[in-house]
Amino acid sequence: MTRLSPRHPRYASLVVRAALAEALTDGVVVPEGLIAHGRGEAFDYYLGERTTPSAARAERIAAAWIRAARHPVLSVNGNVAALAAPQVAALQRRFPNLRIEVNLFHRTPGRAARIADRLRRAGVRDVLGVRPTARLEGLPSDRARIDRRGIAVADLCLVPLEDGDRAEALRARGLRVVSIDLNPLSRTSEAADLPIVDELVRALTGIAAAPPGSRVPSGAPDPARFRALALAAMGRRLRAAAARGRRRASARSGARRR
Amino acid sequence: MTRLSPRHPRYASLVVRAALAEALTDGVVVPEGLIAHGRGEAFDYYLGERTTPSAARAERIAAAWIRAARHPVLSVNGNVAALAAPQVAALQRRFPNLRIEVNLFHRTPGRAARIADRLRRAGVRDVLGVRPTARLEGLPSDRARIDRRGIAVADLCLVPLEDGDRAEALRARGLRVVSIDLNPLSRTSEAADLPIVDELVRALTGIAAAPPGSRVPSGAPDPARFRALALAAMGRRLRAAAARGRRRASARSGARRR
Repeated sequence: MTRLSPRHPRYASLVVRAALAEALTDGVVVPEGLIAHGRGEAFDYYLGERTTPSAARAERIAAAWIRAARHPVLSVNGNVAALAAPQVAALQRRFPNLRIEVNLFHRTPGRAARIADRLRRAGVRDVLGVRPTARLEGLPSDRARIDRRGIAVADLCLVPLEDGDRAEALRARGLRVVSIDLNPLSRTSEAADLPIVDELVRALTGIAAAPPGSRVPSGAPDPARFRALALAAMGRRLRAAAARGRRRASARSGARRR
Repeated sequence: MTRLSPRHPRYASLVVRAALAEALTDGVVVPEGLIAHGRGEAFDYYLGERTTPSAARAERIAAAWIRAARHPVLSVNGNVAALAAPQVAALQRRFPNLRIEVNLFHRTPGRAARIADRLRRAGVRDVLGVRPTARLEGLPSDRARIDRRGIAVADLCLVPLEDGDRAEALRARGLRVVSIDLNPLSRTSEAADLPIVDELVRALTGIAAAPPGSRVPSGAPDPARFRALALAAMGRRLRAAAARGRRRASARSGARRR
Protein backbone atom coordinates (compact mmCIF):
# COMPACT_ATOMS: atom_id res chain seq x y z
CA MET A 1 0.00 0.00 0.00
CA THR A 2 1.10 3.58 -0.67
CA ARG A 3 2.44 5.26 2.46
CA LEU A 4 0.27 8.19 3.55
CA SER A 5 1.77 11.42 4.85
CA PRO A 6 -0.19 13.23 7.60
CA ARG A 7 0.94 16.45 5.93
CA HIS A 8 -0.95 15.63 2.72
CA PRO A 9 -3.73 18.24 2.24
CA ARG A 10 -6.30 15.43 1.90
CA TYR A 11 -4.82 13.11 4.55
CA ALA A 12 -8.16 12.34 6.28
CA SER A 13 -9.75 11.36 2.95
CA LEU A 14 -6.74 9.21 2.06
CA VAL A 15 -6.97 7.28 5.34
CA VAL A 16 -10.67 6.57 4.76
CA ARG A 17 -9.99 5.49 1.17
CA ALA A 18 -7.21 3.15 2.30
CA ALA A 19 -9.57 1.61 4.90
CA LEU A 20 -12.18 1.00 2.20
CA ALA A 21 -9.62 -0.51 -0.16
CA GLU A 22 -8.58 -2.86 2.66
CA ALA A 23 -12.23 -3.75 3.36
CA LEU A 24 -12.53 -4.61 -0.35
CA THR A 25 -9.65 -7.07 0.03
CA ASP A 26 -11.40 -8.55 3.09
CA GLY A 27 -14.64 -8.99 1.13
CA VAL A 28 -16.59 -6.61 3.38
CA VAL A 29 -16.93 -3.91 0.71
CA VAL A 30 -17.77 -4.52 -2.98
CA PRO A 31 -16.42 -2.51 -5.94
CA GLU A 32 -19.76 -0.69 -6.33
CA GLY A 33 -19.39 0.41 -2.69
CA LEU A 34 -16.13 2.17 -3.50
CA ILE A 35 -17.78 4.05 -6.37
CA ALA A 36 -20.65 5.05 -4.07
CA HIS A 37 -18.13 6.32 -1.53
CA GLY A 38 -16.54 8.50 -4.19
CA ARG A 39 -19.92 10.05 -4.99
CA GLY A 40 -20.35 10.81 -1.30
CA GLU A 41 -16.92 12.44 -1.14
CA ALA A 42 -17.85 14.83 -3.93
CA PHE A 43 -21.15 15.82 -2.34
CA ASP A 44 -19.48 16.28 1.06
CA TYR A 45 -16.85 18.46 -0.54
CA TYR A 46 -19.60 20.85 -1.60
CA LEU A 47 -21.21 20.67 1.84
CA GLY A 48 -17.91 21.91 3.25
CA GLU A 49 -17.23 18.55 4.96
CA ARG A 50 -19.16 19.63 8.02
CA THR A 51 -22.63 19.10 9.47
CA THR A 52 -24.98 21.87 8.36
CA PRO A 53 -27.45 23.36 10.87
CA SER A 54 -30.37 21.65 9.10
CA ALA A 55 -28.60 18.24 9.19
CA ALA A 56 -27.92 18.74 12.91
CA ARG A 57 -31.64 19.42 13.40
CA ALA A 58 -32.54 16.27 11.45
CA GLU A 59 -30.13 14.28 13.64
CA ARG A 60 -31.83 15.54 16.82
CA ILE A 61 -35.23 14.55 15.39
CA ALA A 62 -33.83 11.11 14.45
CA ALA A 63 -32.63 10.64 18.06
CA ALA A 64 -36.08 11.54 19.41
CA TRP A 65 -37.75 9.16 16.91
CA ILE A 66 -35.44 6.27 17.85
CA ARG A 67 -36.15 6.89 21.55
CA ALA A 68 -39.92 6.96 20.93
CA ALA A 69 -39.99 3.96 18.58
CA ARG A 70 -41.30 0.59 19.64
CA HIS A 71 -38.91 -1.32 17.42
CA PRO A 72 -36.21 0.80 15.72
CA VAL A 73 -33.67 -0.87 13.42
CA LEU A 74 -30.39 0.41 11.97
CA SER A 75 -29.63 -1.21 8.62
CA VAL A 76 -25.90 -1.87 8.03
CA ASN A 77 -24.23 -2.64 4.69
CA GLY A 78 -20.57 -3.25 3.79
CA ASN A 79 -19.60 0.42 3.53
CA VAL A 80 -21.22 1.22 6.87
CA ALA A 81 -19.37 -1.65 8.56
CA ALA A 82 -16.07 -0.59 6.97
CA LEU A 83 -16.43 3.12 7.73
CA ALA A 84 -18.32 3.34 11.00
CA ALA A 85 -18.48 0.09 13.03
CA PRO A 86 -17.40 1.92 16.25
CA GLN A 87 -20.08 4.59 15.72
CA VAL A 88 -22.72 1.89 15.19
CA ALA A 89 -21.69 0.31 18.51
CA ALA A 90 -21.80 3.70 20.24
CA LEU A 91 -25.29 4.40 18.88
CA GLN A 92 -26.51 1.04 20.16
CA ARG A 93 -25.04 1.77 23.61
CA ARG A 94 -26.89 5.06 23.62
CA PHE A 95 -30.21 3.58 22.41
CA PRO A 96 -30.45 0.05 23.86
CA ASN A 97 -33.74 -0.50 21.99
CA LEU A 98 -31.98 -0.14 18.62
CA ARG A 99 -31.54 -3.39 16.64
CA ILE A 100 -28.73 -3.73 14.12
CA GLU A 101 -29.45 -5.65 10.90
CA VAL A 102 -27.04 -6.55 8.11
CA ASN A 103 -28.67 -5.60 4.84
CA LEU A 104 -26.76 -6.18 1.60
CA PHE A 105 -27.41 -5.24 -1.99
CA HIS A 106 -24.74 -7.75 -3.11
CA ARG A 107 -25.36 -10.55 -0.64
CA THR A 108 -23.40 -13.74 -0.14
CA PRO A 109 -23.57 -15.71 3.11
CA GLY A 110 -19.80 -15.29 3.60
CA ARG A 111 -19.95 -11.56 3.13
CA ALA A 112 -22.85 -11.15 5.57
CA ALA A 113 -20.90 -13.20 8.15
CA ARG A 114 -17.74 -11.11 7.71
CA ILE A 115 -19.71 -7.87 8.15
CA ALA A 116 -21.41 -9.20 11.28
CA ASP A 117 -18.01 -10.23 12.61
CA ARG A 118 -16.58 -6.78 12.02
CA LEU A 119 -19.55 -5.22 13.85
CA ARG A 120 -19.19 -7.59 16.82
CA ARG A 121 -15.49 -6.87 17.13
CA ALA A 122 -16.41 -3.16 17.38
CA GLY A 123 -18.79 -3.97 20.25
CA VAL A 124 -22.17 -4.36 18.51
CA ARG A 125 -24.46 -6.90 20.20
CA ASP A 126 -27.11 -9.14 18.60
CA VAL A 127 -26.40 -8.61 14.93
CA LEU A 128 -29.48 -9.56 12.88
CA GLY A 129 -29.80 -10.33 9.17
CA VAL A 130 -26.91 -12.75 8.78
CA ARG A 131 -29.37 -15.53 7.89
CA PRO A 132 -32.43 -13.58 6.69
CA THR A 133 -35.79 -15.08 7.57
CA ALA A 134 -38.32 -12.77 5.87
CA ARG A 135 -38.77 -10.76 2.68
CA LEU A 136 -39.60 -7.26 1.53
CA GLU A 137 -42.38 -6.99 -1.05
CA GLY A 138 -41.63 -5.66 -4.51
CA LEU A 139 -37.89 -6.36 -4.73
CA PRO A 140 -35.89 -9.00 -6.66
CA SER A 141 -35.38 -11.99 -4.41
CA ASP A 142 -31.70 -11.48 -3.61
CA ARG A 143 -32.31 -7.93 -2.39
CA ALA A 144 -35.55 -8.58 -0.56
CA ARG A 145 -34.15 -10.50 2.38
CA ILE A 146 -34.73 -9.18 5.88
CA ASP A 147 -34.81 -10.53 9.43
CA ARG A 148 -38.14 -11.35 11.04
CA ARG A 149 -36.81 -10.09 14.37
CA GLY A 150 -35.54 -6.88 12.73
CA ILE A 151 -36.82 -4.89 9.77
CA ALA A 152 -39.79 -7.28 9.34
CA VAL A 153 -41.28 -6.01 12.62
CA ALA A 154 -39.73 -2.53 12.75
CA ASP A 155 -41.70 0.70 13.05
CA LEU A 156 -38.62 2.83 12.30
CA CYS A 157 -35.70 2.03 10.02
CA LEU A 158 -32.50 4.06 9.83
CA VAL A 159 -30.89 3.46 6.42
CA PRO A 160 -27.41 4.85 5.91
CA LEU A 161 -26.02 4.67 2.34
CA GLU A 162 -29.07 2.71 1.18
CA ASP A 163 -30.08 1.65 -2.31
CA GLY A 164 -33.06 3.62 -3.69
CA ASP A 165 -35.20 0.56 -4.44
CA ARG A 166 -34.85 -0.74 -0.90
CA ALA A 167 -35.58 2.64 0.65
CA GLU A 168 -38.77 2.87 -1.43
CA ALA A 169 -39.78 -0.69 -0.49
CA LEU A 170 -39.33 0.13 3.21
CA ARG A 171 -41.39 3.27 2.85
CA ALA A 172 -44.11 1.32 1.01
CA ARG A 173 -44.17 -1.09 3.96
CA GLY A 174 -45.42 1.80 6.06
CA LEU A 175 -42.54 2.18 8.51
CA ARG A 176 -40.79 5.45 9.17
CA VAL A 177 -37.61 5.75 7.10
CA VAL A 178 -34.65 7.90 8.18
CA SER A 179 -31.93 8.09 5.52
CA ILE A 180 -28.29 9.12 5.87
CA ASP A 181 -27.14 10.05 2.37
CA LEU A 182 -24.95 12.90 1.13
CA ASN A 183 -26.88 13.21 -2.12
CA PRO A 184 -30.04 15.20 -1.40
CA LEU A 185 -31.40 14.23 -4.83
CA SER A 186 -30.90 10.46 -4.49
CA ARG A 187 -33.96 8.22 -4.58
CA THR A 188 -33.12 7.20 -1.02
CA SER A 189 -33.18 10.82 0.19
CA GLU A 190 -36.39 11.36 -1.77
CA ALA A 191 -38.05 8.29 -0.22
CA ALA A 192 -37.17 9.12 3.39
CA ASP A 193 -39.57 10.57 5.95
CA LEU A 194 -36.49 12.23 7.41
CA PRO A 195 -33.49 12.68 5.09
CA ILE A 196 -30.23 13.35 6.94
CA VAL A 197 -27.85 14.88 4.38
CA ASP A 198 -24.57 14.41 6.21
CA GLU A 199 -21.49 12.20 6.17
CA LEU A 200 -22.03 8.81 7.84
CA VAL A 201 -19.63 9.10 10.80
CA ARG A 202 -20.70 12.66 11.55
CA ALA A 203 -24.40 11.73 11.30
CA LEU A 204 -24.20 8.67 13.59
CA THR A 205 -22.14 10.70 16.07
CA GLY A 206 -24.62 13.56 15.88
CA ILE A 207 -27.60 11.27 16.54
CA ALA A 208 -25.85 9.64 19.50
CA ALA A 209 -24.89 13.04 20.92
CA ALA A 210 -28.40 14.59 20.80
CA PRO A 211 -29.42 15.59 24.32
CA PRO A 212 -32.36 13.43 25.52
CA GLY A 213 -34.52 16.44 26.31
CA SER A 214 -33.81 18.30 23.05
CA ARG A 215 -36.90 19.92 21.61
CA VAL A 216 -38.27 18.38 18.48
CA PRO A 217 -40.95 20.10 16.39
CA SER A 218 -44.37 18.58 16.91
CA GLY A 219 -45.93 17.00 13.85
CA ALA A 220 -44.08 15.43 10.94
CA PRO A 221 -41.02 17.34 9.68
CA ASP A 222 -41.07 18.26 6.01
CA PRO A 223 -38.56 16.01 4.23
CA ALA A 224 -38.51 18.20 1.09
CA ARG A 225 -37.38 21.13 3.19
CA PHE A 226 -34.37 19.21 4.58
CA ARG A 227 -33.35 18.25 1.04
CA ALA A 228 -33.79 21.81 -0.22
CA LEU A 229 -31.70 23.24 2.62
CA ALA A 230 -28.87 20.81 1.86
CA LEU A 231 -28.98 21.75 -1.84
CA ALA A 232 -28.96 25.43 -0.93
CA ALA A 233 -25.85 24.91 1.28
CA MET A 234 -24.07 23.17 -1.62
CA GLY A 235 -25.16 25.90 -4.02
CA ARG A 236 -23.75 28.62 -1.76
CA ARG A 237 -20.32 26.96 -1.71
CA LEU A 238 -20.35 26.49 -5.49
CA ARG A 239 -21.23 30.13 -6.06
CA ALA A 240 -18.50 31.25 -3.65
CA ALA A 241 -15.95 29.07 -5.47
CA ALA A 242 -17.11 30.40 -8.86
CA ALA A 243 -16.80 33.99 -7.59
CA ARG A 244 -13.23 33.29 -6.39
CA GLY A 245 -12.45 31.89 -9.86
CA ARG A 246 -13.90 34.97 -11.56
CA ARG A 247 -11.91 37.32 -9.30
CA ARG A 248 -8.68 35.46 -10.13
CA ALA A 249 -9.59 35.54 -13.83
CA SER A 250 -10.17 39.29 -13.83
CA ALA A 251 -6.99 39.89 -11.80
CA ARG A 252 -5.07 37.96 -14.47
CA SER A 253 -6.61 39.79 -17.38
CA GLY A 254 -5.94 43.07 -15.52
CA ALA A 255 -2.31 42.00 -15.14
CA ARG A 256 -2.14 41.24 -18.87
CA ARG A 257 -3.52 44.66 -19.79
CA ARG A 258 -0.96 46.43 -17.61
CA MET B 1 -22.49 -10.26 -11.23
CA THR B 2 -25.85 -8.55 -10.74
CA ARG B 3 -27.93 -8.57 -13.93
CA LEU B 4 -28.56 -5.06 -15.24
CA SER B 5 -31.90 -4.05 -16.67
CA PRO B 6 -31.85 -1.55 -19.58
CA ARG B 7 -35.02 -0.10 -18.07
CA HIS B 8 -33.22 0.92 -14.86
CA PRO B 9 -33.26 4.74 -14.62
CA ARG B 10 -29.48 4.74 -14.17
CA TYR B 11 -28.70 1.94 -16.65
CA ALA B 12 -25.84 3.77 -18.41
CA SER B 13 -24.11 4.45 -15.07
CA LEU B 14 -24.60 0.84 -13.99
CA VAL B 15 -22.96 -0.47 -17.17
CA VAL B 16 -19.93 1.79 -16.66
CA ARG B 17 -19.67 0.76 -12.99
CA ALA B 18 -19.82 -2.92 -13.92
CA ALA B 19 -17.04 -2.38 -16.49
CA LEU B 20 -14.88 -0.72 -13.83
CA ALA B 21 -15.55 -3.50 -11.33
CA GLU B 22 -14.47 -6.01 -13.97
CA ALA B 23 -11.33 -3.97 -14.73
CA LEU B 24 -10.57 -4.11 -11.00
CA THR B 25 -10.69 -7.90 -11.15
CA ASP B 26 -8.36 -7.79 -14.17
CA GLY B 27 -5.88 -5.60 -12.28
CA VAL B 28 -6.27 -2.69 -14.72
CA VAL B 29 -8.07 -0.46 -12.21
CA VAL B 30 -7.14 -0.04 -8.52
CA PRO B 31 -9.61 0.51 -5.64
CA GLU B 32 -8.69 4.20 -5.44
CA GLY B 33 -9.66 4.47 -9.12
CA LEU B 34 -13.17 3.30 -8.31
CA ILE B 35 -13.51 5.95 -5.59
CA ALA B 36 -12.24 8.60 -8.02
CA HIS B 37 -14.83 7.46 -10.56
CA GLY B 38 -17.57 7.93 -7.98
CA ARG B 39 -16.45 11.50 -7.36
CA GLY B 40 -16.62 12.12 -11.09
CA GLU B 41 -20.15 10.68 -11.26
CA ALA B 42 -21.35 13.15 -8.63
CA PHE B 43 -19.79 16.15 -10.36
CA ASP B 44 -21.18 15.03 -13.72
CA TYR B 45 -24.60 14.67 -12.18
CA TYR B 46 -24.52 18.37 -11.33
CA LEU B 47 -23.22 19.22 -14.80
CA GLY B 48 -26.34 17.54 -16.18
CA GLU B 49 -24.29 14.67 -17.68
CA ARG B 50 -23.72 16.65 -20.85
CA THR B 51 -20.96 18.76 -22.37
CA THR B 52 -21.43 22.41 -21.47
CA PRO B 53 -20.79 25.08 -24.14
CA SER B 54 -17.59 26.17 -22.34
CA ALA B 55 -16.29 22.57 -22.21
CA ALA B 56 -17.05 22.20 -25.93
CA ARG B 57 -15.01 25.36 -26.56
CA ALA B 58 -12.13 23.99 -24.47
CA GLU B 59 -12.27 20.74 -26.49
CA ARG B 60 -11.98 22.66 -29.78
CA ILE B 61 -8.97 24.57 -28.39
CA ALA B 62 -7.40 21.29 -27.24
CA ALA B 63 -7.80 19.87 -30.77
CA ALA B 64 -6.09 22.93 -32.27
CA TRP B 65 -3.28 22.70 -29.70
CA ILE B 66 -2.68 19.00 -30.43
CA ARG B 67 -2.59 19.72 -34.16
CA ALA B 68 -0.11 22.56 -33.66
CA ALA B 69 2.12 20.75 -31.16
CA ARG B 70 5.50 19.37 -32.07
CA HIS B 71 5.24 16.44 -29.68
CA PRO B 72 1.81 16.00 -28.03
CA VAL B 73 1.28 13.14 -25.55
CA LEU B 74 -1.91 11.67 -24.09
CA SER B 75 -1.31 10.21 -20.64
CA VAL B 76 -3.37 7.07 -19.89
CA ASN B 77 -3.98 5.52 -16.47
CA GLY B 78 -6.03 2.48 -15.42
CA ASN B 79 -9.40 4.25 -15.34
CA VAL B 80 -8.82 5.79 -18.77
CA ALA B 81 -7.92 2.38 -20.24
CA ALA B 82 -10.98 0.78 -18.61
CA LEU B 83 -13.44 3.51 -19.58
CA ALA B 84 -12.26 4.85 -22.91
CA ALA B 85 -9.73 2.65 -24.77
CA PRO B 86 -11.74 2.89 -28.06
CA GLN B 87 -11.90 6.69 -27.76
CA VAL B 88 -8.12 6.84 -27.15
CA ALA B 89 -7.59 4.83 -30.35
CA ALA B 90 -9.98 7.10 -32.27
CA LEU B 91 -8.16 10.21 -31.04
CA GLN B 92 -4.83 8.76 -32.18
CA ARG B 93 -6.29 7.98 -35.61
CA ARG B 94 -7.47 11.57 -35.86
CA PHE B 95 -4.15 13.06 -34.67
CA PRO B 96 -1.37 10.76 -35.93
CA ASN B 97 1.24 12.93 -34.14
CA LEU B 98 -0.29 12.07 -30.74
CA ARG B 99 1.75 9.66 -28.58
CA ILE B 100 0.04 7.54 -25.97
CA GLU B 101 1.89 6.97 -22.66
CA VAL B 102 0.85 4.75 -19.75
CA ASN B 103 1.20 6.79 -16.59
CA LEU B 104 0.27 5.18 -13.28
CA PHE B 105 -0.04 6.50 -9.76
CA HIS B 106 -0.05 2.93 -8.42
CA ARG B 107 2.50 1.33 -10.75
CA THR B 108 3.53 -2.27 -11.01
CA PRO B 109 5.15 -3.70 -14.15
CA GLY B 110 2.32 -6.21 -14.55
CA ARG B 111 -0.34 -3.54 -14.29
CA ALA B 112 1.38 -1.29 -16.85
CA ALA B 113 1.60 -4.25 -19.25
CA ARG B 114 -2.08 -5.15 -18.80
CA ILE B 115 -3.12 -1.54 -19.49
CA ALA B 116 -0.93 -1.38 -22.60
CA ASP B 117 -2.43 -4.65 -23.76
CA ARG B 118 -5.97 -3.34 -23.34
CA LEU B 119 -5.08 -0.22 -25.34
CA ARG B 120 -3.50 -2.25 -28.14
CA ARG B 121 -6.53 -4.51 -28.39
CA ALA B 122 -8.64 -1.34 -28.88
CA GLY B 123 -6.37 -0.30 -31.76
CA VAL B 124 -3.84 2.03 -30.10
CA ARG B 125 -0.37 1.91 -31.73
CA ASP B 126 3.04 2.44 -30.09
CA VAL B 127 2.08 2.48 -26.43
CA LEU B 128 4.83 4.22 -24.43
CA GLY B 129 5.55 4.16 -20.70
CA VAL B 130 5.35 0.42 -20.08
CA ARG B 131 9.05 0.40 -19.12
CA PRO B 132 9.67 4.04 -18.13
CA THR B 133 13.06 5.44 -19.02
CA ALA B 134 13.05 8.97 -17.53
CA ARG B 135 11.80 10.85 -14.46
CA LEU B 136 9.76 13.91 -13.55
CA GLU B 137 11.41 16.28 -11.07
CA GLY B 138 9.85 16.81 -7.66
CA LEU B 139 7.83 13.60 -7.29
CA PRO B 140 8.38 10.48 -5.17
CA SER B 141 10.30 7.94 -7.24
CA ASP B 142 7.43 5.54 -7.93
CA ARG B 143 5.25 8.31 -9.36
CA ALA B 144 7.98 10.15 -11.26
CA ARG B 145 8.48 7.64 -14.05
CA ILE B 146 7.96 8.77 -17.62
CA ASP B 147 9.07 7.70 -21.08
CA ARG B 148 11.97 9.49 -22.75
CA ARG B 149 10.22 9.17 -26.10
CA GLY B 150 6.96 10.51 -24.61
CA ILE B 151 6.30 12.97 -21.80
CA ALA B 152 10.06 13.55 -21.32
CA VAL B 153 10.22 15.32 -24.70
CA ALA B 154 6.59 16.52 -24.98
CA ASP B 155 5.56 20.14 -25.52
CA LEU B 156 1.88 19.35 -24.79
CA CYS B 157 0.45 16.79 -22.39
CA LEU B 158 -3.21 15.83 -22.21
CA VAL B 159 -3.93 14.44 -18.73
CA PRO B 160 -7.34 12.84 -18.18
CA LEU B 161 -8.20 11.91 -14.58
CA GLU B 162 -4.71 12.90 -13.41
CA ASP B 163 -3.31 13.13 -9.88
CA GLY B 164 -2.77 16.73 -8.71
CA ASP B 165 0.91 16.27 -7.86
CA ARG B 166 1.70 14.94 -11.31
CA ALA B 167 -0.26 17.67 -13.07
CA GLU B 168 1.68 20.29 -11.09
CA ALA B 169 5.01 18.59 -11.87
CA LEU B 170 4.17 18.57 -15.59
CA ARG B 171 3.24 22.23 -15.47
CA ALA B 172 6.48 23.02 -13.61
CA ARG B 173 8.37 21.27 -16.42
CA GLY B 174 7.12 24.00 -18.73
CA LEU B 175 4.96 22.02 -21.09
CA ARG B 176 1.35 22.88 -21.87
CA VAL B 177 -1.05 20.88 -19.74
CA VAL B 178 -4.62 20.09 -20.84
CA SER B 179 -6.66 18.37 -18.10
CA ILE B 180 -9.86 16.37 -18.41
CA ASP B 181 -11.38 16.36 -14.93
CA LEU B 182 -15.00 16.75 -13.78
CA ASN B 183 -14.00 18.58 -10.60
CA PRO B 184 -13.29 22.20 -11.53
CA LEU B 185 -11.73 22.74 -8.09
CA SER B 186 -9.27 19.81 -8.20
CA ARG B 187 -5.56 20.54 -8.10
CA THR B 188 -5.31 19.02 -11.58
CA SER B 189 -7.91 21.44 -12.97
CA GLU B 190 -6.17 24.29 -11.13
CA ALA B 191 -2.76 23.34 -12.56
CA ALA B 192 -3.90 23.05 -16.18
CA ASP B 193 -3.28 25.63 -18.90
CA LEU B 194 -6.56 24.42 -20.35
CA PRO B 195 -8.97 22.64 -17.98
CA ILE B 196 -11.65 20.59 -19.76
CA VAL B 197 -14.43 20.03 -17.22
CA ASP B 198 -16.27 17.19 -18.91
CA GLU B 199 -16.73 13.44 -18.65
CA LEU B 200 -13.84 11.45 -20.16
CA VAL B 201 -15.62 9.70 -23.05
CA ARG B 202 -17.50 12.86 -24.03
CA ALA B 203 -14.31 14.96 -23.84
CA LEU B 204 -12.15 12.61 -25.95
CA THR B 205 -14.99 12.30 -28.48
CA GLY B 206 -15.41 16.09 -28.52
CA ILE B 207 -11.70 16.69 -29.15
CA ALA B 208 -11.63 14.11 -31.96
CA ALA B 209 -14.75 15.63 -33.53
CA ALA B 210 -13.52 19.26 -33.59
CA PRO B 211 -13.48 20.49 -37.20
CA PRO B 212 -9.88 21.09 -38.37
CA GLY B 213 -10.60 24.67 -39.39
CA SER B 214 -12.53 25.60 -36.23
CA ARG B 215 -11.70 29.06 -34.97
CA VAL B 216 -9.68 29.20 -31.80
CA PRO B 217 -9.14 32.44 -29.90
CA SER B 218 -5.69 33.87 -30.44
CA GLY B 219 -3.52 34.14 -27.33
CA ALA B 220 -3.71 31.93 -24.26
CA PRO B 221 -7.20 31.07 -23.02
CA ASP B 222 -7.92 31.94 -19.41
CA PRO B 223 -8.00 28.65 -17.45
CA ALA B 224 -9.70 30.27 -14.43
CA ARG B 225 -12.59 31.30 -16.65
CA PHE B 226 -13.19 27.73 -17.84
CA ARG B 227 -13.23 26.55 -14.22
CA ALA B 228 -15.58 29.35 -13.16
CA LEU B 229 -18.01 28.61 -16.01
CA ALA B 230 -18.14 24.93 -15.01
CA LEU B 231 -18.84 25.87 -11.39
CA ALA B 232 -21.53 28.27 -12.50
CA ALA B 233 -23.21 25.53 -14.58
CA MET B 234 -23.21 23.22 -11.55
CA GLY B 235 -24.52 26.00 -9.34
CA ARG B 236 -27.43 26.67 -11.70
CA ARG B 237 -28.53 23.04 -11.58
CA LEU B 238 -28.26 22.96 -7.78
CA ARG B 239 -30.35 26.10 -7.44
CA ALA B 240 -32.97 24.72 -9.83
CA ALA B 241 -33.15 21.48 -7.83
CA ALA B 242 -33.41 23.43 -4.56
CA ALA B 243 -36.21 25.56 -6.00
CA ARG B 244 -38.12 22.42 -7.07
CA GLY B 245 -37.70 21.09 -3.52
CA ARG B 246 -39.01 24.33 -2.03
CA ARG B 247 -42.04 24.37 -4.34
CA ARG B 248 -42.90 20.81 -3.34
CA ALA B 249 -42.41 21.72 0.32
CA SER B 250 -44.74 24.71 0.14
CA ALA B 251 -47.32 22.69 -1.83
CA ARG B 252 -47.30 20.11 0.97
CA SER B 253 -47.60 22.65 3.76
CA GLY B 254 -50.42 24.32 1.76
CA ALA B 255 -52.14 20.93 1.53
CA ARG B 256 -51.76 20.46 5.30
CA ARG B 257 -53.30 23.85 6.07
CA ARG B 258 -56.34 23.11 3.92
